[in-house]
Amino acid sequence: MPETIIQGLGVSEGVRVGKAFVYAPARAIADDDRKTDRPELETEKLRNAKAASVSELEELVLRTAEKLGEERAVILKGQISMLNDPSFYPAMEKLIAAEGWTAETAVRKVTAQTAALFESMANDYMRERAADVRDIGGRLLGNVRGDKGRKLSDIREEVILVADDLTPSDTVQLDKSLVLGFVTRIGGKTSHTAILANSLGIAAILGAGDGIDAIRDGDPLAIDGATGTCVIRPEPSTVDAYRERMERQEEARQRLQAFAGQEAVTTDGFRVEIAANIGTPEEAAGLIGRGAEAVGLYRTEFLFMSRSAMPDEDEQYEAYKAAAEAMQGRPVVIRTLDVGGDKELPYLSVPHEMNPFLGYRAIRLCLDRQDLFVTQLRAILRASAHGTIKIMFPMISGLAEWRRAKAVYDNVRADLLRDHVPIADRIELGIMVEIPSAALQADRFAKEVDFFSIGTNDLVQYTVAVDRMNEQVAGLYDYFHPAVIRLIKRVIDASVERGIWTGMCGSMAGDPLAAPLLVGLGLHEWSMAPSAMQKIKREVRRMDRAACQELAERILDMDTPEEVRDALERFQHRLPDGDTGQS
Amino acid sequence: MPETIIQGLGVSEGVRVGKAFVYAPARAIADDDRKTDRPELETEKLRNAKAASVSELEELVLRTAEKLGEERAVILKGQISMLNDPSFYPAMEKLIAAEGWTAETAVRKVTAQTAALFESMANDYMRERAADVRDIGGRLLGNVRGDKGRKLSDIREEVILVADDLTPSDTVQLDKSLVLGFVTRIGGKTSHTAILANSLGIAAILGAGDGIDAIRDGDPLAIDGATGTCVIRPEPSTVDAYRERMERQEEARQRLQAFAGQEAVTTDGFRVEIAANIGTPEEAAGLIGRGAEAVGLYRTEFLFMSRSAMPDEDEQYEAYKAAAEAMQGRPVVIRTLDVGGDKELPYLSVPHEMNPFLGYRAIRLCLDRQDLFVTQLRAILRASAHGTIKIMFPMISGLAEWRRAKAVYDNVRADLLRDHVPIADRIELGIMVEIPSAALQADRFAKEVDFFSIGTNDLVQYTVAVDRMNEQVAGLYDYFHPAVIRLIKRVIDASVERGIWTGMCGSMAGDPLAAPLLVGLGLHEWSMAPSAMQKIKREVRRMDRAACQELAERILDMDTPEEVRDALERFQHRLPDGDTGQS
Repeated sequence: MPETIIQGLGVSEGVRVGKAFVYAPARAIADDDRKTDRPELETEKLRNAKAASVSELEELVLRTAEKLGEERAVILKGQISMLNDPSFYPAMEKLIAAEGWTAETAVRKVTAQTAALFESMANDYMRERAADVRDIGGRLLGNVRGDKGRKLSDIREEVILVADDLTPSDTVQLDKSLVLGFVTRIGGKTSHTAILANSLGIAAILGAGDGIDAIRDGDPLAIDGATGTCVIRPEPSTVDAYRERMERQEEARQRLQAFAGQEAVTTDGFRVEIAANIGTPEEAAGLIGRGAEAVGLYRTEFLFMSRSAMPDEDEQYEAYKAAAEAMQGRPVVIRTLDVGGDKELPYLSVPHEMNPFLGYRAIRLCLDRQDLFVTQLRAILRASAHGTIKIMFPMISGLAEWRRAKAVYDNVRADLLRDHVPIADRIELGIMVEIPSAALQADRFAKEVDFFSIGTNDLVQYTVAVDRMNEQVAGLYDYFHPAVIRLIKRVIDASVERGIWTGMCGSMAGDPLAAPLLVGLGLHEWSMAPSAMQKIKREVRRMDRAACQELAERILDMDTPEEVRDALERFQHRLPDGDTGQS
Repeated sequence: MPETIIQGLGVSEGVRVGKAFVYAPARAIADDDRKTDRPELETEKLRNAKAASVSELEELVLRTAEKLGEERAVILKGQISMLNDPSFYPAMEKLIAAEGWTAETAVRKVTAQTAALFESMANDYMRERAADVRDIGGRLLGNVRGDKGRKLSDIREEVILVADDLTPSDTVQLDKSLVLGFVTRIGGKTSHTAILANSLGIAAILGAGDGIDAIRDGDPLAIDGATGTCVIRPEPSTVDAYRERMERQEEARQRLQAFAGQEAVTTDGFRVEIAANIGTPEEAAGLIGRGAEAVGLYRTEFLFMSRSAMPDEDEQYEAYKAAAEAMQGRPVVIRTLDVGGDKELPYLSVPHEMNPFLGYRAIRLCLDRQDLFVTQLRAILRASAHGTIKIMFPMISGLAEWRRAKAVYDNVRADLLRDHVPIADRIELGIMVEIPSAALQADRFAKEVDFFSIGTNDLVQYTVAVDRMNEQVAGLYDYFHPAVIRLIKRVIDASVERGIWTGMCGSMAGDPLAAPLLVGLGLHEWSMAPSAMQKIKREVRRMDRAACQELAERILDMDTPEEVRDALERFQHRLPDGDTGQS
């Protein structure tokens, strides 16, 4: 049989060759509805199944917390609390008692209804929750039946997993040493499964559609988790090609590691700081060894999400202190809470909004809810005694907001000093530049702040008026839009003029193609996903700043993102190979 | 009894003094649920009530279309189609047949359920539809009972209407010669009732809360529909004060009328063009007499909304031609279709979006749906033979979009010329500048377009990242934000450099406080609500451009909207009175 190529969404990169393990769990929801004349027995069965499901989930939570950190475990914690939602598990018991359905039928009915309800919602986040509902419903059903189909724990050798869908709880159970990658029929880029696959570093293709029907258990597969390509029963030449790419990737990874200890400095001596974006203090561990000179963005919102009450001052203090200590005196830039209408914080009860990206969030919410803001600032200031902490405020749109935030900070600081609480002598205070108005007034801000950090992800969204999560218009989202580049230049120039520094913590900073442009514009601090740091160091080290400046000048006068991209690609191709990082 | 002051939302301006008419229609939904043993009789009753309701609504649609134009009538047309929705009227018949409820109970149950469903929705627009559901449910109920409580048609003298809530169908029935104004317990600024009150020019206060319980039928009232203040049983001195304000408003209106025929020219000879924003060709009638030198924005989307199929080329042609003819050779700037996720076009089936303002709309949709775009451009080009038509494209974010739109236009034009269809020799083509990226690249656009029209409403929303319909953050929405003013300057400067013109069609253009700033920046064409034109002409005529330029320079270096506003207020106070419009 000749090889067959199918295409899905590449959601977690990695080239892999292996044997298919076709996973068919007892999740098929379609079955006949059945009634019982002994409802009390069915209720009993359902209760036992619930208890079994809860203890399975609790074990999974622990395992996930160890493997992937707290913030991933909360996804599964959420499933336990979902079980207790009045519209979910209790509705099943009611259905048995009131209408005499069997436990199995009651689970299936309520699961289908609840999942359909989530799916009908306008909000992407809520829609993705339908998968969680199906996951927990399937687990209950398996426990009611005492039959779980073919289990993931049946995997005993290296395989590539093939399934209709992998639930978040399936995904965290995967044994990385055996599961080389996975391919699913359904699922999108923003699903929890995609996020988890990325965290685990498992190559993954989602949404491959009915193409997966061509895969039989045990078939050889070759997959590329970056491009989303899956080759079924590959020809020997294809296998060779994929294996060669795997080897090249591994070699490249090793070559890059040599750059970890190097400075990011151009051939003519312009040095920039390479920093990492993190979401939890655990992620700070090992960063220095990978080449981080700082944490340029510590997103504090993970600490606040998927829990029923706000973390108190001490809990926050411990987290910020741990990050500061892990960086051993190198700077850690903490961003104050950036949540709002599109992220769920049950204890905040932010109202539904028609356009959450243009709504009540981040500093807007913090200035309004000073209880929350003051607690966070107290925790950060206390942690400042244990390292080099800097603070930045997100979503600043005008001078008045910055001044109000600064005033709150000054009060908190004065209170702590009065109470003789140890804090750092000096803490730099800056703003995120992610709203066009802040970039347009950078000259005014530069007189008052200690630094800027450009958040390109949001800045592009507002400057071009595009929600990049909206697939119908995502094509317009491009940080190479000349208008965005003009704003970036404005911010950097304003900081240079006043002798302060500018960082960038959007994904542009980690894109090698953007590097010559950012060197040309004179960006001081580059903060990115840790996996990009070594590559960017290598790039910067093979550039000449004067040539980059000339390139940036030309780009500022271009019409379209396509022209910019072309110019950058041509520039990149002409760059010398540079050193090997061993110097 | 002393006078009592209550406060609501001022939604439609006007100072009025009159007698309270307390309106209590048969809409109280709370009542005992009753069953019947003759369901076929109840079904019969319900069917008759439906027929009566439909003919009442049809008559209302006609009356509304006459009084307020087609686009207001569609709100009521929507109620007729809502009756036929499977989840509404048919659900009532089913409830009688299946469960034996009376017609009255069935109407009440389904109305309450449906309204609650709409109210639970995340989308403001859908939530406001709950009022429409209650309106139509109340009408059905009245017809089932054959008892309609105290009717609006009982009004025989000049009154101020007081009610728990006015439905859209109540509102359009109001006789403007008798109803001086109204005050309601509930309702918000974006409700249909508020929109209709504004169109009718009836002073209105909504959401006055339980304060209205202090009003008895026949009480004297003094209301201010701008501030939302309602005085119950006013003292004679209060009545005098309100009457004096009414007289002053009337005198001011008459004095302004004298400016209709004047040019908007500064004391040192800088002349600007005063234009009107319209939504239908009917609104163009009489504009010249009120002082319009052009239509600066013809919003074509009204023609497309609340109908089941797209208007065809001929229907569109007739509308555009009527507008062009009404303006007798003066320019009419037609904006191509600006719809998307937040506006319902059933025949377009735009998917739900998390952030519709950053989504698939306007030119993004038109370039994607060229069938629609080509039809509209053909209609506009054909209409160009009957006046001076200019075309502008909304939501342009980059050069590539403009060039694609221009290419479609060029093809349509070539097709019409080939077929010898009469069209104007030359049609100016421009873009709306309402996305920051377009303003930031104005210098590049100026080489290719014939004009710019700055849409300040959207431009402010994107520049400051604020949805102005979101009450939690609306305070940040301000066109006096210095960043916005810097963008406006950039656009005007780019147009002057290339010898093209810049207009503005956001609400800033009609704000007298903004006038000296816009004169200072050199804005060429000012397009606004027709009611603002005379006042703006008077303002411009008492200014000196050199002084305005000096003011604008200072403002560009200010930090906050508050400083800008202060400076403009001080400038306005120092202006001479100017002429009386009689010169």
